Amino acid sequence: MRWQDLAKENCSVARTVSIIGDRWTILMLRDCFNGSKRFDEFQNSLGISRSIVTDRLNILVEEGVLSKQPYQERPIRYEYRLTQKGLDLYPVLMSFFGWGDKYYSGENGAPLVFRHKTCDHDFNAVTVCSHCSEELNPKEVEVRPGPGSGKHAMSLQG
Amino acid sequence: MRWQDLAKENCSVARTVSIIGDRWTILMLRDCFNGSKRFDEFQNSLGISRSIVTDRLNILVEEGVLSKQPYQERPIRYEYRLTQKGLDLYPVLMSFFGWGDKYYSGENGAPLVFRHKTCDHDFNAVTVCSHCSEELNPKEVEVRPGPGSGKHAMSLQG
Repeated sequence: MRWQDLAKENCSVARTVSIIGDRWTILMLRDCFNGSKRFDEFQNSLGISRSIVTDRLNILVEEGVLSKQPYQERPIRYEYRLTQKGLDLYPVLMSFFGWGDKYYSGENGAPLVFRHKTCDHDFNAVTVCSHCSEELNPKEVEVRPGPGSGKHAMSLQG
Repeated sequence: MRWQDLAKENCSVARTVSIIGDRWTILMLRDCFNGSKRFDEFQNSLGISRSIVTDRLNILVEEGVLSKQPYQERPIRYEYRLTQKGLDLYPVLMSFFGWGDKYYSGENGAPLVFRHKTCDHDFNAVTVCSHCSEELNPKEVEVRPGPGSGKHAMSLQG
């Protein structure tokens, strides 16, 4: 399969991967959630070429993950803000943080601590079932073809 | 920054990206959670070159995400199974599924439906606070340097 064909796959992971399954894109989204809005902020944070930053920003704007708005007239300069579709990538980012914290923190602990203003406590992100609110365990999940499926069943096997 | 330097970054997202932040790796992990264990299953599923499959499997084994065990002696053949560290990537996969389902399902709906055997209901994955169990909203989260940080504070801004 070619990379460009992933978006046509009848799989939500493949479609998501076709948009954000890129190392630099994920790090740019991290920076967006950390408040970065301008081209130079992304480039300085990652130390990568301007063409990579331009390419990834264009994809995220085309897909409606970021909105592009002018903040200066002469010369014209743009800033990039997460749309609701972009904000909805927060679980992706938090799952990356959580796994990295668990397995790649140094001996001193996690590089960052998250505080939930709603309850005023430090927290970790937990992925739960929308029905019973129990933490999800892949061995307790079954998968079947949905209404948008044209394919055969798959069953999750841990 | 070079790709290889990401693992040295003092950021859990960058470290995670350095291991699984690759389009094919994420799709191979999807296949692992769907029960794929053998080289040919990964290659047939993705239709990519044997060298890409070999390279990604080697990284996942080296990092302890997959274990490699012989299932046949002559000629020797191996199968690849998710370790606990690999199973702990389930929130990453579910967050990809969830976002793709929400924004890239066709008019018929999601390609797959997930059922939680624990409560016997169809579900979506929800990312919540480990303290109060409320669904996380990035605008309600503050970030500060943790014990493993050598850097300055960052504050999340939606």
